[in-house]
Amino acid sequence: MKEFRPIEKFHLNNINNIIIVASGKGGVGKSTVAAVIAISLAKKGFKTGLMDADLYGPSVPTLFNLQNERPISNEKDGKTSIMPFIRAGIKIMSLGFFFNPEQAVIWRGPMVTNAVKQLMNDTEWGKLDYLIIDTPPGTGDILITLVQQFSINGALIVTTPQLISLADVQKSIDLFNAANIKIPVLGIVENMSWFSPSMHPDEKYFLFGKGGGESLSKQFEIPLLAQIPINENICNQCDFGLLEEMLLDYDMSVSFDQVLKSLI
Amino acid sequence: MKEFRPIEKFHLNNINNIIIVASGKGGVGKSTVAAVIAISLAKKGFKTGLMDADLYGPSVPTLFNLQNERPISNEKDGKTSIMPFIRAGIKIMSLGFFFNPEQAVIWRGPMVTNAVKQLMNDTEWGKLDYLIIDTPPGTGDILITLVQQFSINGALIVTTPQLISLADVQKSIDLFNAANIKIPVLGIVENMSWFSPSMHPDEKYFLFGKGGGESLSKQFEIPLLAQIPINENICNQCDFGLLEEMLLDYDMSVSFDQVLKSLI
Repeated sequence: MKEFRPIEKFHLNNINNIIIVASGKGGVGKSTVAAVIAISLAKKGFKTGLMDADLYGPSVPTLFNLQNERPISNEKDGKTSIMPFIRAGIKIMSLGFFFNPEQAVIWRGPMVTNAVKQLMNDTEWGKLDYLIIDTPPGTGDILITLVQQFSINGALIVTTPQLISLADVQKSIDLFNAANIKIPVLGIVENMSWFSPSMHPDEKYFLFGKGGGESLSKQFEIPLLAQIPINENICNQCDFGLLEEMLLDYDMSVSFDQVLKSLI
Repeated sequence: MKEFRPIEKFHLNNINNIIIVASGKGGVGKSTVAAVIAISLAKKGFKTGLMDADLYGPSVPTLFNLQNERPISNEKDGKTSIMPFIRAGIKIMSLGFFFNPEQAVIWRGPMVTNAVKQLMNDTEWGKLDYLIIDTPPGTGDILITLVQQFSINGALIVTTPQLISLADVQKSIDLFNAANIKIPVLGIVENMSWFSPSMHPDEKYFLFGKGGGESLSKQFEIPLLAQIPINENICNQCDFGLLEEMLLDYDMSVSFDQVLKSLI
């Protein structure tokens, strides 16, 4: 049987670790988790970048209050490079910087693929210990391009506890495990695990079900790194570029320390 | 200036109204809303179909407890047609029926496009008053194919109240409004608007922010049809194929009646 010739991969020589944050399902808080991981790594002294590869729904500009910013490009030795923004100590690039927030990106697969490749390669990342990539939901063109054409060191999976989101998440894990891809899945982060109203701190409401992260963890033998509850402040912190505040919450900060242990 | 020749559209002659349920952002409850709209239409006596076009994260099989079912196909006059399942009085087809739930669909754009076209055209819908289409998040290949190649009568937009999801939702509306597409956006459904614990029914927690639906409604002059609160039962109802129970809740049933007024 003839073996497939592996696709030539791009090597980003100055970047030690490229980590994909994926989920299969949208709306599970993947971008928030990716951003807070990047912030936490930077706080620990690692040189960190955050690449938002979710062309159709880029959240990173909003998360860092960069909605109306446009990156500048640099010409050096005949090569154009794009300057990332620096916020909370991390270098930030997003496909969203190149479109008006209200404007639909009506691009089909091949154009999307080129945009991602170009932005990964042409951003002036400098030397990085970690590049965290926030990916779109699903296992479509963008994720396929990233895993086939870049040397990815590992993937983190974000899910809610809900059964209906697990099927989608399993699909992502399946993609990373595929024989011609083989990207180690470092762990599972269960998000929106429960809600405790600040007025009734002893009550726990499992609005998005229960046990999903644990069941995935057993099924695929991947560690469940953390269960992150939802609280009344997260929404505002995300909407108004106040993500760093999230780590002032003790439980939150412990959760993300747990997640970081899988990376460091 | 030369005008673009419009793409030849497929006409599904036996279907009176094809309605797209879209959201831009994943995880806002789009599939649940699409399914409950279909159930409500059937309850009112309309012949209704539900097409799940979310190839990468099909939720409809789980919503109707059809995860392990495979549709049968029929050969008639040399033409193959696929038999939909019938649950809660609606005819149901999903791209998810053709894959194992844990299996990643590693298809790029063109294959996805063909799968959607084939399933729309070859499903034995019979005569329908309404075909409700649940679409994937984003404005990628599947949504582009549906709006360009089928005669869609209208779109419903599902969002959460959160600012960060609004940017993505605006992109979908922008797509429907595009000069060469022009699909009427019938209204906005705000989902997960607040949470009232059953033990404290007077308390309202705005876990996903506030006012997003209203602000979209003003910006695009599209009616805000309903605000649907989250409750402790929805997750189970979705996970275990008990969607019909949702309409036993008085507030829920009133909300969906409001949504239906935009369609009938």
